Amino acid sequence: LTSTDVLSRAAELDAADPLARFRERFVPSAKVRAYLDGNSLGRPLRVTRERLGTFVDQDWGGRLIRGWDERWMDEPTRVGDALGRIALGAAPGQTTIADSTTVLLYKLIRAAADAQPGRRELVCDRDNFPTDRFVLQGIAAERGLRLRWIDVDPAAGVTPEQVREVVSEDTALVLLSHVAYRSGWLADLPEITAVAHQRGALVLWDLCHSVGVIPTELDNWAVDLAVGCTYKYLNGGPGSPAFGYVRAELQDRLQQPIWGWMGADDPFQMGESYQPAKGIRRFLSGTPAILAMRPMIDMMELVEEAGLPAIRDKSVALTEYAIALAEHLLTPLDATLASPVPSARRGSHITLSHPNARAATALLWERGVIPDFRTPDGLRIGLSPLSTSFAELAHGLSALEQVLTELANR
Amino acid sequence: LTSTDVLSRAAELDAADPLARFRERFVPSAKVRAYLDGNSLGRPLRVTRERLGTFVDQDWGGRLIRGWDERWMDEPTRVGDALGRIALGAAPGQTTIADSTTVLLYKLIRAAADAQPGRRELVCDRDNFPTDRFVLQGIAAERGLRLRWIDVDPAAGVTPEQVREVVSEDTALVLLSHVAYRSGWLADLPEITAVAHQRGALVLWDLCHSVGVIPTELDNWAVDLAVGCTYKYLNGGPGSPAFGYVRAELQDRLQQPIWGWMGADDPFQMGESYQPAKGIRRFLSGTPAILAMRPMIDMMELVEEAGLPAIRDKSVALTEYAIALAEHLLTPLDATLASPVPSARRGSHITLSHPNARAATALLWERGVIPDFRTPDGLRIGLSPLSTSFAELAHGLSALEQVLTELANR
Repeated sequence: LTSTDVLSRAAELDAADPLARFRERFVPSAKVRAYLDGNSLGRPLRVTRERLGTFVDQDWGGRLIRGWDERWMDEPTRVGDALGRIALGAAPGQTTIADSTTVLLYKLIRAAADAQPGRRELVCDRDNFPTDRFVLQGIAAERGLRLRWIDVDPAAGVTPEQVREVVSEDTALVLLSHVAYRSGWLADLPEITAVAHQRGALVLWDLCHSVGVIPTELDNWAVDLAVGCTYKYLNGGPGSPAFGYVRAELQDRLQQPIWGWMGADDPFQMGESYQPAKGIRRFLSGTPAILAMRPMIDMMELVEEAGLPAIRDKSVALTEYAIALAEHLLTPLDATLASPVPSARRGSHITLSHPNARAATALLWERGVIPDFRTPDGLRIGLSPLSTSFAELAHGLSALEQVLTELANR
Repeated sequence: LTSTDVLSRAAELDAADPLARFRERFVPSAKVRAYLDGNSLGRPLRVTRERLGTFVDQDWGGRLIRGWDERWMDEPTRVGDALGRIALGAAPGQTTIADSTTVLLYKLIRAAADAQPGRRELVCDRDNFPTDRFVLQGIAAERGLRLRWIDVDPAAGVTPEQVREVVSEDTALVLLSHVAYRSGWLADLPEITAVAHQRGALVLWDLCHSVGVIPTELDNWAVDLAVGCTYKYLNGGPGSPAFGYVRAELQDRLQQPIWGWMGADDPFQMGESYQPAKGIRRFLSGTPAILAMRPMIDMMELVEEAGLPAIRDKSVALTEYAIALAEHLLTPLDATLASPVPSARRGSHITLSHPNARAATALLWERGVIPDFRTPDGLRIGLSPLSTSFAELAHGLSALEQVLTELANR
C-alpha cells in the first residue's frame, strides 16, 4: 500500500458510511477544512440556532416566570432521564444535568467519602484528567484522606489488574475515566467496577470522553456514580452544564455538601432547615441552567436517531483509518502512536506524539485544520462520528504530514 | 384622591419617564398584560435571539475549539469586569462569572471560614433567602461552626444595630442579602459592613435582588465578598450563571475548596498538583458557561446605556406608585403592605400580604398578569425599570383588585 492508496480509501469509506447523511445537520464552516477536535468541543447543529431563538421568544419571553412551574423545575431530571435512556443505559430517576463536571465531581466524591467514614483512601490513576485529580487532592486535604495513585502507561490506561492491586478494605472511592483524555484508552469499566466492589469500594466514572460515542450500560454494569460533560460528543456548546448519575439504591444513603434550595425537599416551601430531596434531585444545588441545556437536547435527539451502536461502529472505523493514515504518512516523519491499537480498548480519539506537536498544531489551525495539542508533545485527533467524514480526516492528516515536513526542513 | 385618580396617573408617569423608550428593546408577549415578576426572571431582550444565533454560527460553529484560546478563557473575568464597572462599583480583577449563586456561596463561605480558623461563628438573618441559609447550615455542620441567627421584622430587614449586637471577635463571616427577597428591604450595606469590620469579621453580600437596579459601590464600601445571580435584573435567562466578587487584597489569602482545572494557575499545563491561580481566577472551578453568558452581556450594555442612577430613580417611582395603588385599591380588600415605606430602604419590589395570595396569583396568571407568590401569604410585585411601564403596573394591580374581590365573593 502506498500513501496514495491509503488516502484514496477515504472516498470509499465515505460512500459506504451509513451515517454520512448526518453531517449536513451541522453548521458548516467554509474556512474549516478538517475539524479534528470534536472530542473537545462538538460542532453546533443547524437546528440549534432556530431552537435557541424559539426558546428565547416563546419559552422564556412568552411564559416568563411561569416556565419554572410549567416545565423547567423538572428539566434537569427530564433531560437526565433522556440521556440515561439514549446514551448511558440508565433507568429513569438516576441522572440529572447540573453544574460543571468539576463541581459534580466535588459533590459526588464528598458524598461517597462522607458516607464511608471508616474508609480513608481514595484511588485514582496518575494520568486522569487534571480536574479529576485536583478535586480529589482538595478533598483529600480537607477531609484528611489518603490518595493512592495508579501509574499507567501513557499510551494506554488503567487495567483491572492495576486496580485490584491497589484497592482495599480501606478504599472509599475509585475515580477513573472511562476513556483517557490523552491516549484514548477505553477502560474495562464493568470489570474494574466489579473489582472495586469486591473490596466494598464505590466507583465514580468520569464519562466525559465516552458519553455519546461509546455504548454504556451503567445499570447493568452496577456502576455507583458517574459524571460527564456535554460539550464534547453531546455538542452542548462551550461550557454547557454537566451530568451526574447516582445509582438508585445509593441515593438516599449519600448526602452532597452543597445544600441549596434546588436540592431541598420542597424548594418553594422556603423552610427553616435544609431537608434533602428524595432521589436524584438531592444532588442539585442552585438554579438549573435551562437555556444552556438547549443544544445538548438537539444532539441527544440526533444520537437517538442514528443509534449509539452505529455511532460506535463509525467511531471505530474512523480511529482505525486515522491509525492507518498515521502509519503511512506520519510515522516516516517520526510521529508515534500514543494510543491503544486494539479497537476494543480505544475511544473516539487518538494521540500522536511528535517533538513538533505544538508548532504543528499552530500551523494547522491557521490552515483550517484543527486538531488539539496536549502537553508535552501530543497531537490529539478527535473524531466525532456524526459530524466527521473520512475525507476530512484524510485531508487533516495529509495537512499534518505537510506541516511536519515543513517544520523538519526549517 | 379616588382610585380612578390614582390609576389615571399611570399615563402621566409613563409620559414623563425618561427610560420609557427602552421598553421596546424587550421581546414582546401579546398574551402578557402585566409582567410583575422581573425580579425573579427578567424578560429577554430582542437582540438576544439574534446574538445567540450569531454566537452559534460564527463563534462556536466558526471558531470551534479555537474560541477557547482566542477569547473564551478570559470571558468569565472579562464579563465580570464589565459587570463590576457597570453595576457593582468594582475595579477590574475582582469579579467573575461562575457556577450558580448557591455553588459560589459555598465556595466563598468555605474560603472565608477556612481562612480564619480561630473564629467559629457564622452570622446570618433568619429571613435570608433559603439557599443562603441552607448553604450556611451545611458548612456549619461539616466544619463544626456555630450559626448565629438574627431575627428580623418580616416586613423590613436587618439593621446595623442588630448586626452590632450579634457580631463578635468569634465571627468569621456575616452573610446577608442587600435586598431581602420577600420584603424588598434594602439593607444599609456600607454601615453593616463597617460594623462587621470593627470586630474583624468578613462580610459576604448576596446581591441577587439588587444587582442591576441599585447603584452599588463595592470597592468604596470596603465589601469583602459578594455573589449574585444574573437572571433577575440582568436578564440572563433561566439558570444563567452567577457572579462572585472578592476584594483584591483578600484574594491570595483565600482558597476555595473546589479545586478544578479552570481555577488552576496554568490550566493547560495539566500539572501533577493543583496550584491555585493568582487573583480572582482561583475562584473558578469547572469550564465556564460561555453560551449561557450571552444574554446577560446584552442586558449589561442596556444598563450602561440607561445608567444605573436613572434606573434606580425609575425603580423608586415604580415602587412608590405600586404602594399608592395598593393603598387605594387593595387595602380596602384587606391586603397589607409587607415592605418598607421609606424608599431609601426599599429595593425594586414590594410584597403585599393577603390570606388569598396564593389563589389570587393563580387566577392572575391565567389572565396574563404575572406577580409572584411567596409562602405563606405574600404577593410579590417585582418592577424591572427598563421593561416595566407604569400603565402595566396599574393594570396589574387593578386586576389584582378584581381578583381579590371575586375571591371574597365566592
